[in-house]
Amino acid sequence: MYRTHTCGQLRIQDQSKTVTLAGWVQTIRKFGAITFVDLRDRYGITQLLFGEELTLQLEQNPLGREFVLQATGLVKERSNKNPNIPTGEVEINVSDFVVLNKSVVPPFTIQDDTDGGDDIRMKYRYLDLRRNTVKKNLELRYAVNRAARNYLHQQGFMDIETPFLIKSTPEGARDFVVPSRMNPGQFYALPQSPQTFKQLLMISGYDRYYQIVKCFRDEDLRADRQPEFTQIDCEMAFVEQEDILNMFEGMVKAIFKEVKGIDYIEKVERISWEHAMWNYGNDKPDIRFEMKVLNLKKPSSVYINKKDRHDLITGAGFKVFDNAETVLAIAVPGCSEYSRKQTDELTEWVKRPQIGMGGLGYIKCNADGSFKSSMDKFFNEEKLKEIAAASHAAPGDLILVLADAEEKTRKAISELRLEMAERLGLRKKDEFKLLWVLDFPLFEYDVEENRWVARHHPFTSPKPSDIATMINNIPVIENPAEYLKHPYANIKANAYDMVLNGNEVGGGSIRIYQRELQEKMFEALGMTKEESLHKFGFLLGAFEYGAPPHGGIAFGFDRLCAILGGSESIRDFIAFPKNNSGRDVMLDAPSTIDEKQLNELQIRLDPKR
Amino acid sequence: MYRTHTCGQLRIQDQSKTVTLAGWVQTIRKFGAITFVDLRDRYGITQLLFGEELTLQLEQNPLGREFVLQATGLVKERSNKNPNIPTGEVEINVSDFVVLNKSVVPPFTIQDDTDGGDDIRMKYRYLDLRRNTVKKNLELRYAVNRAARNYLHQQGFMDIETPFLIKSTPEGARDFVVPSRMNPGQFYALPQSPQTFKQLLMISGYDRYYQIVKCFRDEDLRADRQPEFTQIDCEMAFVEQEDILNMFEGMVKAIFKEVKGIDYIEKVERISWEHAMWNYGNDKPDIRFEMKVLNLKKPSSVYINKKDRHDLITGAGFKVFDNAETVLAIAVPGCSEYSRKQTDELTEWVKRPQIGMGGLGYIKCNADGSFKSSMDKFFNEEKLKEIAAASHAAPGDLILVLADAEEKTRKAISELRLEMAERLGLRKKDEFKLLWVLDFPLFEYDVEENRWVARHHPFTSPKPSDIATMINNIPVIENPAEYLKHPYANIKANAYDMVLNGNEVGGGSIRIYQRELQEKMFEALGMTKEESLHKFGFLLGAFEYGAPPHGGIAFGFDRLCAILGGSESIRDFIAFPKNNSGRDVMLDAPSTIDEKQLNELQIRLDPKR
Repeated sequence: MYRTHTCGQLRIQDQSKTVTLAGWVQTIRKFGAITFVDLRDRYGITQLLFGEELTLQLEQNPLGREFVLQATGLVKERSNKNPNIPTGEVEINVSDFVVLNKSVVPPFTIQDDTDGGDDIRMKYRYLDLRRNTVKKNLELRYAVNRAARNYLHQQGFMDIETPFLIKSTPEGARDFVVPSRMNPGQFYALPQSPQTFKQLLMISGYDRYYQIVKCFRDEDLRADRQPEFTQIDCEMAFVEQEDILNMFEGMVKAIFKEVKGIDYIEKVERISWEHAMWNYGNDKPDIRFEMKVLNLKKPSSVYINKKDRHDLITGAGFKVFDNAETVLAIAVPGCSEYSRKQTDELTEWVKRPQIGMGGLGYIKCNADGSFKSSMDKFFNEEKLKEIAAASHAAPGDLILVLADAEEKTRKAISELRLEMAERLGLRKKDEFKLLWVLDFPLFEYDVEENRWVARHHPFTSPKPSDIATMINNIPVIENPAEYLKHPYANIKANAYDMVLNGNEVGGGSIRIYQRELQEKMFEALGMTKEESLHKFGFLLGAFEYGAPPHGGIAFGFDRLCAILGGSESIRDFIAFPKNNSGRDVMLDAPSTIDEKQLNELQIRLDPKR
Repeated sequence: MYRTHTCGQLRIQDQSKTVTLAGWVQTIRKFGAITFVDLRDRYGITQLLFGEELTLQLEQNPLGREFVLQATGLVKERSNKNPNIPTGEVEINVSDFVVLNKSVVPPFTIQDDTDGGDDIRMKYRYLDLRRNTVKKNLELRYAVNRAARNYLHQQGFMDIETPFLIKSTPEGARDFVVPSRMNPGQFYALPQSPQTFKQLLMISGYDRYYQIVKCFRDEDLRADRQPEFTQIDCEMAFVEQEDILNMFEGMVKAIFKEVKGIDYIEKVERISWEHAMWNYGNDKPDIRFEMKVLNLKKPSSVYINKKDRHDLITGAGFKVFDNAETVLAIAVPGCSEYSRKQTDELTEWVKRPQIGMGGLGYIKCNADGSFKSSMDKFFNEEKLKEIAAASHAAPGDLILVLADAEEKTRKAISELRLEMAERLGLRKKDEFKLLWVLDFPLFEYDVEENRWVARHHPFTSPKPSDIATMINNIPVIENPAEYLKHPYANIKANAYDMVLNGNEVGGGSIRIYQRELQEKMFEALGMTKEESLHKFGFLLGAFEYGAPPHGGIAFGFDRLCAILGGSESIRDFIAFPKNNSGRDVMLDAPSTIDEKQLNELQIRLDPKR
């Protein structure tokens, strides 16, 4: 060992001990013949004092920032104590030291508020990882990992490793593939998730499985997506949805307790997908604040059973509303006194290409009970009052209205709702609110291919009451314009998402476990019998040998950590992340490979123009 | 929940409770109008009793082996108790049952002594996994995983995930590569180990890192190798070899204690590589028994400082010995009375192609003190006595002698030693003996390329006393025939292997942490400056920013589990293993992929004839 203690260990009680520390030079301060050095390691910082007698030795072995130093000396009480660090009462009176390694000047400062930009910090990731903020993130990640494992272990789950070199069965996202040298012309795929394996493990009787495991998706990377990511992947046999919800809100609560010291004792709220879409415009609402959506004009393709309030806007002669497929509003608390400049700025905000709306209507619900609206020409005070009442606006609130095509408007109102909450400080980093979203549709309609696609994945079970509908109908959509009238459009899935502060952190479902139903599902997704046998024959086969009812869930581990760490960027919580083009700029990967490697794999590059 | 209890849970104290169980039908036995069913789940087996009143219901819902059954009834004391299982005192008097799923007849019996061959069990792996023996293996694997994690956590190690999509830097084994769609013409590689990442983490100050992680090697698969395998991968900063040895024999002892209930209190033996080769003919000796090798004629290329006993055989006129490069012997305890048939059979054994020797000499050290040898013609009683003394043979032992080229003979005597121990019952499955092998050579000589290759890997540090030799000499081997005279041939590494019962279960080294020395190492391995910068520029760069002294170790997790489970086949301890051609026969992977996928990746198949 190069040390007797770590740099975070020594206290006033250790006075007069002779100790040896090893670490990195954080700062050097000279006061005449005396030199103070802050020595840093993973555990903390300890002050070293180099007295006059070491002057010559220091001249011969000059120190610099990030030098690796081993120092021996006596622990002394500091005259000038630092109450901000646990070691702040002591210093080491150095009697001997060795420079274990030198450092050139780092390209950015190793401090919380570093001067390094994103690119340079990615390139020198090993230096960025030295910064305390990044270290705290990885420590939090490890704490979450540990808390999840401990909880699952206590609940009788077994960590079982599933293979990484599997079969390519693209359905939804693209697979990364791996050419096989031993089987030329054939490829493995990297798993997008261990889905089918964990189902097989249930069929094998393992009952409760978990894994914290890397998964891979070759997708065009949106901001904050990584081609490789980590899941807490779980599956249980002989369970119903209710069992899974209870088990895994228990896990997340255990993580809260262990990692953040938070007693999340209240029951996790549960809402249906339809309720989420209707009230928040999206299926992962942030429920730390209200600001629910008022559906002034009902979108056409969802909410079969909901009644909109088109009575409030129809017949007013306002063409923007009359021509729009959908009109949605939110009441923003306490913003009725927004200036013209502020409402203009909000209008610009919704017009940005990311949102893409044509404009923004508003109704100021003044504190005195009067109203002022951008649509005064079409709506009299009485109508405005009715709209205000419908949107639960109080005096002092500002109602914002958007109108356009259904999906666009719904997304826009969701974004606007989050943006206003952000501006109002309602999205607090240290407040955590969980939510289960339930009863998702089983299918989504794919316009281009005029067919059904699985909303969750092809192994998700329909609600028991919808199984007959699924089995007894032909999936083909005769009339694309009326796809909503197809019986499949209303089939609900036994699927659930866990939402934390407006982010989907986990999702899962009760699975199909009967061959007949699974075959019907593959048929519904447009697979021929041959295709489904080629891709999933092993699973269909397994269903014939006594498959138990089962279900599970997978948590996005990177995202869960990021949110617990008060960040929305998963990259900050990954030791060696890739950039938005899927590159590791530190390694310079991916990169070209040798002709010899290509030859051995019996493949050739085939560049397109 | 489909059950109130598991099939392993109920005891006599639960009498008169109404319970619901769910599981698989293991056996069905009919006695007149009464039917007994053994119901199995992960936790155990419970007997169900179907009385006469259920006859009709059973006729309408006939049961079969491996059917999934949910049964409700009263817990009763059994009249005919089964003391072999924890639930053996009770049975469930079934009042109601549901067949949750049927099963066709399995292709082999789901029992410890199954009638299924290897191939069929691999194809239906999900059924093989139901067998108790396989389940026990996976449970042991999870217990080892958990014990290792707990120990490392207590010792302050942090689990930090390293990337799977990295850069191809083939050196030694072949990389699996992954074409990048987003960066056409470029490839990621799957890691052969997280080696450089864990070193970077030490440079980043993480001090104690671990990971239980999949690694990948695209090698021609020998028996019991897998293209993907799992390591317990660890690294520590500010340590010397001694620290690592202590830390990790502590880990393995903790695993012994936790998983096997074994208090391994004795200090783990340590021997040098040279000592291992000299005394056992290989570097991973099984030291549960003696039978050390007598070096009658010294091999030429190792053991610089050892003296052989050629005086015992030289000048006897026995051409086999005179012409052989190497002559080695072992004394097998208590086998002097082997018959001619038995010695002939042993001779055939060493002549098998796997061993490849031309013949086998023997000396019977009879109980009465006389000797009988296959080489009586050349060696008189006196000489035989001297050889017996040198090989530590006692009266009653059988000395076996092999002679041929150095490496072949050394390997053969090693194999023979193990084989004889096996026959004598000296390799007990429940006896565990650890061993550290130290002081490996840093380099091996590659005849074909007339250059040095790294024995461990290119990041292993030479012994401090050998650093000057390495820096101050040119690696080029002017005269291949005399490569042993090159100063590099004698450089010893700061490397260590942990051996358990004759298997290497872990290996590691103190690393190079100075750029100059690392560059010299790359040069020694025949890399140009450009190559080393292209492949490992990030690491060389990192060494310039304050790299601390560090070292680590990686354990072969699959192998460690297999040995602890009393098996030598790692495949039995992997949930979904691949066969010897690297195929997953259950999935039928690898397989061909769509033309569309190839197009997107901008690669083409290029089949060789």
